[in-house]
Amino acid sequence: MSRLLLNCDMGESFGSWTMGLDAQVMPYVDCANIACGFHAGDPGIMRKTVALAVASQVRIGAHPAYQDLAGFGRRSMACSAEEIRDLLHYQIGALDGICRTQGTQVAYVKPHGALYNDMMADPLKLRAVLEAVAAYDRQLPLMLMATADNSAAQALGDEYGVTLWFEAFADRAYDASGHLLSRRLPGAVHHDPAVIVEQALRLARGEPLIASDGSPLQLQAHTLCVHGDNDSSIAAVRQIRQALDAQAVP
Amino acid sequence: MSRLLLNCDMGESFGSWTMGLDAQVMPYVDCANIACGFHAGDPGIMRKTVALAVASQVRIGAHPAYQDLAGFGRRSMACSAEEIRDLLHYQIGALDGICRTQGTQVAYVKPHGALYNDMMADPLKLRAVLEAVAAYDRQLPLMLMATADNSAAQALGDEYGVTLWFEAFADRAYDASGHLLSRRLPGAVHHDPAVIVEQALRLARGEPLIASDGSPLQLQAHTLCVHGDNDSSIAAVRQIRQALDAQAVP
Amino acid sequence: MSRLLLNCDMGESFGSWTMGLDAQVMPYVDCANIACGFHAGDPGIMRKTVALAVASQVRIGAHPAYQDLAGFGRRSMACSAEEIRDLLHYQIGALDGICRTQGTQVAYVKPHGALYNDMMADPLKLRAVLEAVAAYDRQLPLMLMATADNSAAQALGDEYGVTLWFEAFADRAYDASGHLLSRRLPGAVHHDPAVIVEQALRLARGEPLIASDGSPLQLQAHTLCVHGDNDSSIAAVRQIRQALDAQAVP
Amino acid sequence: MSRLLLNCDMGESFGSWTMGLDAQVMPYVDCANIACGFHAGDPGIMRKTVALAVASQVRIGAHPAYQDLAGFGRRSMACSAEEIRDLLHYQIGALDGICRTQGTQVAYVKPHGALYNDMMADPLKLRAVLEAVAAYDRQLPLMLMATADNSAAQALGDEYGVTLWFEAFADRAYDASGHLLSRRLPGAVHHDPAVIVEQALRLARGEPLIASDGSPLQLQAHTLCVHGDNDSSIAAVRQIRQALDAQAVP
Repeated sequence: MSRLLLNCDMGESFGSWTMGLDAQVMPYVDCANIACGFHAGDPGIMRKTVALAVASQVRIGAHPAYQDLAGFGRRSMACSAEEIRDLLHYQIGALDGICRTQGTQVAYVKPHGALYNDMMADPLKLRAVLEAVAAYDRQLPLMLMATADNSAAQALGDEYGVTLWFEAFADRAYDASGHLLSRRLPGAVHHDPAVIVEQALRLARGEPLIASDGSPLQLQAHTLCVHGDNDSSIAAVRQIRQALDAQAVP
Repeated sequence: MSRLLLNCDMGESFGSWTMGLDAQVMPYVDCANIACGFHAGDPGIMRKTVALAVASQVRIGAHPAYQDLAGFGRRSMACSAEEIRDLLHYQIGALDGICRTQGTQVAYVKPHGALYNDMMADPLKLRAVLEAVAAYDRQLPLMLMATADNSAAQALGDEYGVTLWFEAFADRAYDASGHLLSRRLPGAVHHDPAVIVEQALRLARGEPLIASDGSPLQLQAHTLCVHGDNDSSIAAVRQIRQALDAQAVP
Repeated sequence: MSRLLLNCDMGESFGSWTMGLDAQVMPYVDCANIACGFHAGDPGIMRKTVALAVASQVRIGAHPAYQDLAGFGRRSMACSAEEIRDLLHYQIGALDGICRTQGTQVAYVKPHGALYNDMMADPLKLRAVLEAVAAYDRQLPLMLMATADNSAAQALGDEYGVTLWFEAFADRAYDASGHLLSRRLPGAVHHDPAVIVEQALRLARGEPLIASDGSPLQLQAHTLCVHGDNDSSIAAVRQIRQALDAQAVP
Repeated sequence: MSRLLLNCDMGESFGSWTMGLDAQVMPYVDCANIACGFHAGDPGIMRKTVALAVASQVRIGAHPAYQDLAGFGRRSMACSAEEIRDLLHYQIGALDGICRTQGTQVAYVKPHGALYNDMMADPLKLRAVLEAVAAYDRQLPLMLMATADNSAAQALGDEYGVTLWFEAFADRAYDASGHLLSRRLPGAVHHDPAVIVEQALRLARGEPLIASDGSPLQLQAHTLCVHGDNDSSIAAVRQIRQALDAQAVP
């Protein structure tokens, strides 16, 4: 079994405003998706978040977004493919500049919020993101959502020569097509730690999940998205980490 | 005689607003100071400006500023040394990211507007800038203002191991201490092309200028700051270029 | 014949960047759509533009937009109805505050760019705009696009008790359904002054235009959108003004 | 004894970031200083904060700032008097626009952060603020810092015909000249609720405080600045409120 990486959004404070318990969750994850200033994060926050990641030997990912601070990058914007490439290069570069001063560098890219959703919904937007990553550094993997069938996305990744890291969620229910159940539906979010850890272990072992209609759902995932928002989400991350580590021992 | 480089602020358009005749002035300069998004320049403008520089084989300089789009980076802001370092790293990195996608990289740093003035007026701010440049890449020269006595700045540059490129102006009058005459005073700006070219040649030859009080003024300058704002400033740049090239032929 | 008002976007400069020949076009129009800081315009630009309008006794309209300075408000953003109401109130209020210091006030509202387009395309967005205008001041007319059939928009305006001012264009070709012909199609923009003036006069007299397929197109328009971008657009405005004034004489 | 008003900074959240326990502190204060979008507050936050104030029948004050979201308006910016007037009018107007949709209006002005400090330190800046308030609405009082001698500020207020509301602090120590003791010095901030309430009561009764050097300090204050940052500051506000109300009963 290859190792399932834990990734977590980080550095989403801004100026005098704090969001996320980055210092507490950092020791338990493998990959820190660091905001690059367009939806959250300012140069000082980015520096501190990179330092936290370096101290915990966590891979640093660029977490670029549409330029929408007031909307936290969660509102889709009608950006052209060229605009998407440009804003990715600017943001990845900015984070890489800050990494460079601490002897590290950006190791992957995960678009944020509405840009992430648009990339999953529109192949032209996914192409723009892939082209941007390939132009910046073809060695950088792109993180995106695992679904029941990753083949279309994989074909595009192959076309641009970009490695794809598919991510899944341990604390969210899936429908039979491998999409996250809408948060508006009952049961969309798992709160029972046992359920969350069980789903993480199934993903790590490559076993099928149970979709919301009871059918088995096979997801191929390289990484699990976890959250450092509050004490209970951090407790869940710690439990997932322990379960995965116990599992990994031969 | 070592070659006197011509540097020019570029990429100071933003979104739908245009400023500067970059494409017209680019062929005549050696160094393009490219805005990095905080006082001017957006990711798309930066990409196009880098492309222009690459096409003319012009060195690319980061032209970082205080974050003040409405004030064009011309209003001093009470930023701490740490804030100055962070905003430099962010902006240099962003431009470097865009350079990277075009097979080039940032070759020097020239702070913009109020940040430039503050750096010249306050040794603590100059230290912050030097520390930032050294942390990013000690090979990057820092461009700053030549005065009658560069020794204090040079000592600081040496302390941080950063090469300094002192710049002078061909179209501005100097006072006896080697500071630019305030634009509010008569004769502060030269308009006669013959006077401008003569001043450029004196700087290139290492000959003293004539200060506003008539005294000789010896400036040590590595580069000349020129302007691409309008047709007449571009005509002046062309004439300076031709005069310097003629001069350089053995 | 009731008077056909000429409206023009104004105050679309920002900081050190200039756009539009506001001072030159102001004397020829009736209504100035003044940018409110979200897509263009800063407090100082707004003050100067209001002063120009006051000096020419031109009605002042708020020209609010999505918050997207880099995109000039031309990129649709997925804002909720509540967010649209809030951003309208903020921007109309800001302009009204500046008007107040010059003894005048906002006299109507015309959304800008993508917000305008979204309002025309999506009745829920038009409802949000109408609700915002009604909540701010039910006396303020809302300017929107005339089409072959204004009745659906008019019904919504009546529902919210908001007066609608439908606008048409003299320099654009229309298709048979009363929509502007896409700029990508040949003949979409009229350049011949005689054609522009003729279209303006037809609109002023309530006579049908000739659609791009040759069919007659009856548009009910209260106002004509004109442009102050450059010398030739201003020449066209002047000619339209003269033709309308000549027409208006009993 | 005239009533001592309690004022508190409010609406300093932004987008997805929360700051301050506004809903909890609102019932205990008289005046809500509401951020206007330049240092904190967005249109939606402003609407919600105005609604809270209306529900508790609290006076609404505009709390305008330099345009510096990343620095929370705490970094001085070299703005001209004209720029200060413009940014005040824009921000007061924006808040007034939001107030208007809820049947209320801005009742006073209190500059924020660095703008407040600059206004207290530089009479030219205070003049700019007074001129801005007078031009907007001469009926609006301006809130500023009480010192041992308010006469210079009062003379300027009189010159512009603007009412001044001097504010003092119950939880901060003063030096003998009536300035707040620097937070860097020991004893600068009172933590003992009894001391805080005692200082509030002295201010309410017009009795002298005891300065940090033990000398009596007579401050003329119309209002007391309180804080809704956290549970303990809210507890202090509640105690001050109760003590003042008990005092006020004949």
